[in-house]
Amino acid sequence: MDRIPILKLGNCLLVTIQVDMHDQLVMTLQDDLTAAIVKHRARGVIIDISSLELVDSFIGRMLANIAGMSRILDAETVVVGMQPAVAITLVELGLTLNDVRTALNVERGMALIRDALEDHAAWGQGAAGGAYGRGPGDDSAEG
Amino acid sequence: MDRIPILKLGNCLLVTIQVDMHDQLVMTLQDDLTAAIVKHRARGVIIDISSLELVDSFIGRMLANIAGMSRILDAETVVVGMQPAVAITLVELGLTLNDVRTALNVERGMALIRDALEDHAAWGQGAAGGAYGRGPGDDSAEG
Repeated sequence: MDRIPILKLGNCLLVTIQVDMHDQLVMTLQDDLTAAIVKHRARGVIIDISSLELVDSFIGRMLANIAGMSRILDAETVVVGMQPAVAITLVELGLTLNDVRTALNVERGMALIRDALEDHAAWGQGAAGGAYGRGPGDDSAEG
Repeated sequence: MDRIPILKLGNCLLVTIQVDMHDQLVMTLQDDLTAAIVKHRARGVIIDISSLELVDSFIGRMLANIAGMSRILDAETVVVGMQPAVAITLVELGLTLNDVRTALNVERGMALIRDALEDHAAWGQGAAGGAYGRGPGDDSAEG
């Protein structure tokens, strides 16, 4: 297992994390994912972590990094499928994943991305005379 | 890693095989998948094997078994993402996966399932006086 598969679904990319992540695998995933965003002109990245029974600061940083890289490439990132126990542990550890959007499952994650894109499009049309900057669909955290 | 996640996408279920399969993992996947088909009333199962660099008779049998179980539960199974080298090896080994439908990627797999469901619906409407039996969308192989 030397790379994690990236599946294309419409204008989104889906990544399912099933194995223990180590440095090299994270690097490869970041390379593959950014290349796939550009290649497929993807507007969304969905990361499914339903297999993970533990999310530590290493995984948290990886998710935030991926979200930051995707944002720069104009793609929204949503982390989906988190187990309830993982959410409890994250908050207890003080890791609140502020930089990363979450949704219950893949379908809701895709809906979130669709809504964000629509908000963005509406903002672009409605704010012709407004200040340049971030759309209302973006969250304010910088990765 | 004691189970493989099953993701719901519309009326399809998506399974990504990333790890080496062993007996217990296959049993758990079959249990989880059949339960998920019933729970979500799924009409299609998409199995992504783009991570697999080797498909042997064990994996081939697993895929055929899953396709057979899904068919009994009225869901179509499509295997997607096979690497070219895997296809070459399979044919050289004489494993032609006759019982299993394949497609290039997840999107084409979903399109195949959609078409099969439409064929099935059209057949159901058009063949009111015909013999009972299999629709034109079904393949003839019995798992």
